[in-house]
Amino acid sequence: MGSFAFLEEWFSKRQEEIRADFFRFLAFPSISADPSYAGQVRACASWLSEFLHKKGLGGRLVETSAYPLVMGELRSLKSDAPTVLFYGHYDVQPVDPLSLWKSDPFVPLERDGKIYARGASDNKGQIFYALLAMAACKELGIALPVHVKFCIEGEEESQSRGLKEALPKLQQELKADALLVIDFDSPEKEPALSLGARGMAGMEITVTGSNTDLHSGILGGAAYNPNRALVEMLASLWDADGKVQVPGFYDDVVEEKADLYHFSSTEEDFTRAFGIRAFGGEKGRSLKEAVWLRPALEINGMGGGYSGEGIKTVIPAKAFAKLTMRLVPQQNPEKILAALSRFLEEKAPAGFGLSIESSGGEKAWRGRPDSPLAKAVAQAASEVCHAPCRNVLCGASIPIVADLLETIKTDVVGMGYALDTDQIHAPNEHFDMPRLKKGFLTVARAMMLYK
Amino acid sequence: MGSFAFLEEWFSKRQEEIRADFFRFLAFPSISADPSYAGQVRACASWLSEFLHKKGLGGRLVETSAYPLVMGELRSLKSDAPTVLFYGHYDVQPVDPLSLWKSDPFVPLERDGKIYARGASDNKGQIFYALLAMAACKELGIALPVHVKFCIEGEEESQSRGLKEALPKLQQELKADALLVIDFDSPEKEPALSLGARGMAGMEITVTGSNTDLHSGILGGAAYNPNRALVEMLASLWDADGKVQVPGFYDDVVEEKADLYHFSSTEEDFTRAFGIRAFGGEKGRSLKEAVWLRPALEINGMGGGYSGEGIKTVIPAKAFAKLTMRLVPQQNPEKILAALSRFLEEKAPAGFGLSIESSGGEKAWRGRPDSPLAKAVAQAASEVCHAPCRNVLCGASIPIVADLLETIKTDVVGMGYALDTDQIHAPNEHFDMPRLKKGFLTVARAMMLYK
Repeated sequence: MGSFAFLEEWFSKRQEEIRADFFRFLAFPSISADPSYAGQVRACASWLSEFLHKKGLGGRLVETSAYPLVMGELRSLKSDAPTVLFYGHYDVQPVDPLSLWKSDPFVPLERDGKIYARGASDNKGQIFYALLAMAACKELGIALPVHVKFCIEGEEESQSRGLKEALPKLQQELKADALLVIDFDSPEKEPALSLGARGMAGMEITVTGSNTDLHSGILGGAAYNPNRALVEMLASLWDADGKVQVPGFYDDVVEEKADLYHFSSTEEDFTRAFGIRAFGGEKGRSLKEAVWLRPALEINGMGGGYSGEGIKTVIPAKAFAKLTMRLVPQQNPEKILAALSRFLEEKAPAGFGLSIESSGGEKAWRGRPDSPLAKAVAQAASEVCHAPCRNVLCGASIPIVADLLETIKTDVVGMGYALDTDQIHAPNEHFDMPRLKKGFLTVARAMMLYK
Repeated sequence: MGSFAFLEEWFSKRQEEIRADFFRFLAFPSISADPSYAGQVRACASWLSEFLHKKGLGGRLVETSAYPLVMGELRSLKSDAPTVLFYGHYDVQPVDPLSLWKSDPFVPLERDGKIYARGASDNKGQIFYALLAMAACKELGIALPVHVKFCIEGEEESQSRGLKEALPKLQQELKADALLVIDFDSPEKEPALSLGARGMAGMEITVTGSNTDLHSGILGGAAYNPNRALVEMLASLWDADGKVQVPGFYDDVVEEKADLYHFSSTEEDFTRAFGIRAFGGEKGRSLKEAVWLRPALEINGMGGGYSGEGIKTVIPAKAFAKLTMRLVPQQNPEKILAALSRFLEEKAPAGFGLSIESSGGEKAWRGRPDSPLAKAVAQAASEVCHAPCRNVLCGASIPIVADLLETIKTDVVGMGYALDTDQIHAPNEHFDMPRLKKGFLTVARAMMLYK
């Protein structure tokens, strides 16, 4: 630990202040998907910008057409040093079902060594340790061999609307030699380098059968129930082997070599961790392929008719579903969304109104395992964790990364100390102080090691 | 109109008082399906009982294991006169989606000659005119040839739990020679005698795939999404011809002669009235058969995952559906529910938890067109409306009727002036004063004509 004992000391001395700042950050209900939280999202951005400013990291807000970016930097003394751009986000997922939370998602609470709050792991905890690492380097006067820039957005959970639109204007501002995306997992004792993530594409569909809800006694058996139409349409999306039936869905999928990446989880691990009782992926594909190397289609939400207590004998006027797809390299979101729309239009029973609202999408991406940033992060993580750092992928998406890469045309590495048991996007999300510290040390050390 | 001019006069003179009482009755949110309205359901019962008491109709509450019955009577001077039992209900359906109501469902409002409120048509308006008819007979001192009893329950919209359980104890109390169920439709200018209704059976099912909601990026393509399992299970309930695929579903269905009953609606009528765009009944069956003579299965509600604004990339732990079936004579609700449960259990993908909560059911029933009550009501309705009274059926269910008939073993007739455009069970339910008066005159006159 010799090479970063002074960082450890810096962190340990400030533990209470760090915790207080982190809890303040977590307390903002910065839910970007729900417009009713707009004020809180902005308040969170202002607080974070002010935090960077106070740490001497040049915190400032950059307005977009939607929520502002929080930007900042730490300059190397060597003016011609390469630049690493940190990417993260200060927005969080919605919290429902709220009833399953054991404590208020926006009143951070440490219980049994875990810090519970929405965003604790995804992504406030992770971006917080990275910023803290740079604050320490600044305060300690460490001569870094790189310039570091931060771009922390407020819409990662909502397809990065504002940042995406602003990218052409921000080309200079974001210019860098490498992009570090600090929004990833590592298994418990093995640090990991994330060298890619799946892309995403989403849509919401609504089927309309009548102008008003109908009485299911008076019209039951005659009117075509929109709930029935919807389940018939959705059920036709997969065959019995879990293969998506949308024509062209797999056309552009590149078969990557699975052994480039380290994956150790088994179905039994997932059952133990999440109580998963049924696996429904494509027949003949390994779990590693299912979650990393193959595209997937999921119904994230659906509904129609009465959902309250008891019975209401209604045939609803409408039923809806929210669908997302995870994409792999070479798949084009727009092309896939168009194919899915066509398929659903064909499957909608005659007479139904079908509205399809696309929420767009992002491509999958990959990073090189031998880039200067990849090597620096791998070495730092390995030193901090006393374990080899593995190359992995991520089944989830950081929607903006592919666009960022297209704009700034640079190398990319993903890192992070999230665990797949952190309950991100679910009730009782949590992170912890030991991982906050590990992340802090890894980021600071990686920037010191960059060659 | 000679034979009931004095009734018309009685009604006209009291028009404002009648409206005020009716509006007061409508203002109670007596939603039996939702336990959070329990106090309001009871308040409604108390008010109604008091109303009967003030009218000299012996109003009283009879407690059950759930909500009380409101009972009362008007005795004939002839002590050996036959007895007619009036049945209706003071509870109402839930109101959601509330956003589609143009005015508060529990602040009755007369607009363009229509009275808008939840329950205006189903069933408060209808039972109110029947009680008013007896109040007029009492006040006017009309010598009726029948004793009249009232049984107005508070759980018709919730499978009549309390009344059903209390029936064995109430055999004496309810003893009658004929049952008049005042909860039916008549087409606009043609009065109708309802000689039967479909039965009903319902259940709620929940499929569980994991202990917690999952991230659809991290586990998408591997975990079997409960939404997918549910739509696959539900879609398998019908074939492409709209035939229910549950083994035995049609086994006990008796083929009745469709021309015993008058049915004049066409698909075009339904499209005009409700904007229905798609019809999904059994292929080869007429509309009359579809809604009156054939059983039906409907998904009244379903849901799983995120339903708020925007996108949430979640694989929910659970998904649910609320199902009801409409049954025809000879079909047994318990047998049909068991068959449906077996079918769903077989269709649930391996590994899923499936919970099935049956809400029980009621048989279909039929009345004789030549019973004394049927003849009296038909003649009265025909006189009041200056049009022949037609024999019809009802596709909807009055769950308790079959049980009442099994208990008191008597003739039965359904009547009413509801219209299929009254939006019962839907937003903006309404009734009107002209029909309130028509109902009032028909009921009073029918009791005078009973032989």
